[in-house]
Amino acid sequence: MKTPFDWAKHISEPQYLQQEIDHLTSSQQIKEDHKPEKKDNIQPKSSQITKRGMAFLSWLQDVFDVPLVIQLTDDEKFLWKDIKLEEARQLAYENAKDIIACGFDIEKTFIFSDFDFMGQCPNFYQNVIRVGKCVTFNQVKGIFGFGDSDVIGKISFPAVQAAPSFSNSFPFIFGKANIPCLIPCAIDQDPYFRMTRDVAPRLGYHKPALLHSSFFPALQGAQTKMSASDPNSSIFLTDTPKQIKNKVNKHAFSGGQATIEEHREKGGNCDVDISYQYLRFFLEDDEQLKQIEKNYTSGELLTGELKKKLIDVLQPLIASHQERRAKITDETLQAFMTPRKLKYTY
Amino acid sequence: MKTPFDWAKHISEPQYLQQEIDHLTSSQQIKEDHKPEKKDNIQPKSSQITKRGMAFLSWLQDVFDVPLVIQLTDDEKFLWKDIKLEEARQLAYENAKDIIACGFDIEKTFIFSDFDFMGQCPNFYQNVIRVGKCVTFNQVKGIFGFGDSDVIGKISFPAVQAAPSFSNSFPFIFGKANIPCLIPCAIDQDPYFRMTRDVAPRLGYHKPALLHSSFFPALQGAQTKMSASDPNSSIFLTDTPKQIKNKVNKHAFSGGQATIEEHREKGGNCDVDISYQYLRFFLEDDEQLKQIEKNYTSGELLTGELKKKLIDVLQPLIASHQERRAKITDETLQAFMTPRKLKYTY
Repeated sequence: MKTPFDWAKHISEPQYLQQEIDHLTSSQQIKEDHKPEKKDNIQPKSSQITKRGMAFLSWLQDVFDVPLVIQLTDDEKFLWKDIKLEEARQLAYENAKDIIACGFDIEKTFIFSDFDFMGQCPNFYQNVIRVGKCVTFNQVKGIFGFGDSDVIGKISFPAVQAAPSFSNSFPFIFGKANIPCLIPCAIDQDPYFRMTRDVAPRLGYHKPALLHSSFFPALQGAQTKMSASDPNSSIFLTDTPKQIKNKVNKHAFSGGQATIEEHREKGGNCDVDISYQYLRFFLEDDEQLKQIEKNYTSGELLTGELKKKLIDVLQPLIASHQERRAKITDETLQAFMTPRKLKYTY
Repeated sequence: MKTPFDWAKHISEPQYLQQEIDHLTSSQQIKEDHKPEKKDNIQPKSSQITKRGMAFLSWLQDVFDVPLVIQLTDDEKFLWKDIKLEEARQLAYENAKDIIACGFDIEKTFIFSDFDFMGQCPNFYQNVIRVGKCVTFNQVKGIFGFGDSDVIGKISFPAVQAAPSFSNSFPFIFGKANIPCLIPCAIDQDPYFRMTRDVAPRLGYHKPALLHSSFFPALQGAQTKMSASDPNSSIFLTDTPKQIKNKVNKHAFSGGQATIEEHREKGGNCDVDISYQYLRFFLEDDEQLKQIEKNYTSGELLTGELKKKLIDVLQPLIASHQERRAKITDETLQAFMTPRKLKYTY
């Protein structure tokens, strides 16, 4: 899936963002009502992670205090896109730096690229083949819509995405323990993990638990798609303050009325207004958000003012990310991506 | 494919032996007439190798003085047979010991199991995915007869068999050099390597060269199949002298006549006589073989005498293998199976 940020430019599927507010709520409930086993590990797909999704993930990790493994599916990218293998790997490293810049604890987090990790840990490949022995072409045809003219690399890829759901793919972290896994992911990734859940009991593994996020809309509106090839369809992590301002002012679909007079009279529509929708994700202060919704709906707040609010929120957010991102060295990257024991004992 | 020997008990496809006499001839011609580039590497599939095939392989390696890489496809075994992954790996190690007992030079030979090596060398997986991006389900359906109800692990396996044909799957041996590869194999493996030859130029690699061997018949005759589940269908590397004697006497299909009188009159048929066919593989002395053929065809040599000759050849051959095999330690096994620089420089 795609995200509204820079590193998402190179990912193939439709773009979504984890809606961390919903998730905070639901996961807090999970925590209080059915607190998962202490030893759950969290395994998100990198491609399902955005800046805010990362914040949620980081929060989840803090709450549960568990290992986090992040799979960068550079093999998937190579198989689906017209790019060189080395480019796909390089993009994975760039993604990893953006992820690290979100502030994960190196003692608790292992980030890996499929192309690298497959050659570092026989247990990973062994689980890929275990899954690959349980799933037929008919099944992946039904689940993913593969056809006879699809390449065999794609056809067997779902097994690669499934394998990190099983803790014994990471013996350096979990030893031989069979630990259940929680996967926060966008709804479009559900088919992969339904397949995984289907296969897990046959292999004697826990079914992974899923937390689904909703879609993050493109600037042009909820009915349009973010596109890596259209820089105006989203805000990227590399955008300058000026670019952010221009994009929001020029491209963010407005739920306001045609004239100021009409707007004052009828009010704006928050349900379709992208600036408001983005603020739902990025404005930390829920009270303020409620006030904005009220004022915009009543017509008191004009579209230009609403857009300015979003710009004021996004500019420092992106700038501070860029600052942290610039400080991530190749050494730090390598440290996060080295298979190693984390701070947990199993 | 299967071989007539012990380690072949666990391999799934029909059994063949490399007919080393033909191959000696043809490969000598290759050597003299079109000597392959000095830096060819030889990459046989272990499953295509038998005791005598191994002798041929060893001869090839001596003549060309090149690295030899031997792929043990324990993943294939696991995918196709109803066995546990750990069993498949264990069988690969047993096979490797039999191969080592045939006398390969540790300075020139790297033996690997897919399950282990995939997790030791990212370059191997990268080539698997490169191949997997070039071959469609339609193609493997046509080539291998896969159907919609086959599991995805099987469907993508041909890419795993193809990858060791490319020298950059072994950077510790060849560095980044692009070295052509010679693959002695049984004719039934041809589809895999035709596919590989088809893909190679698209990846900028050399097409692997092939040396095809003919089939090695079962004891019951050329029209029957050796079967791992039928111990009487072949001679195994673990057979005792008594078992060899019994098997040959009781089960080796005879080209002789019904009675001694008739045999003396009409002579035996070497074309269908399994004892004679086996002697073609195992009797070193070509003159003696010619004499046996002449005497058996004329009726001078009786079936019992021919069988005794085969028994006399096989018993010491198998016994001396068992002796060498017993001396192969786990340390030696591990040394052969450790990814490492061989004695060649690239």
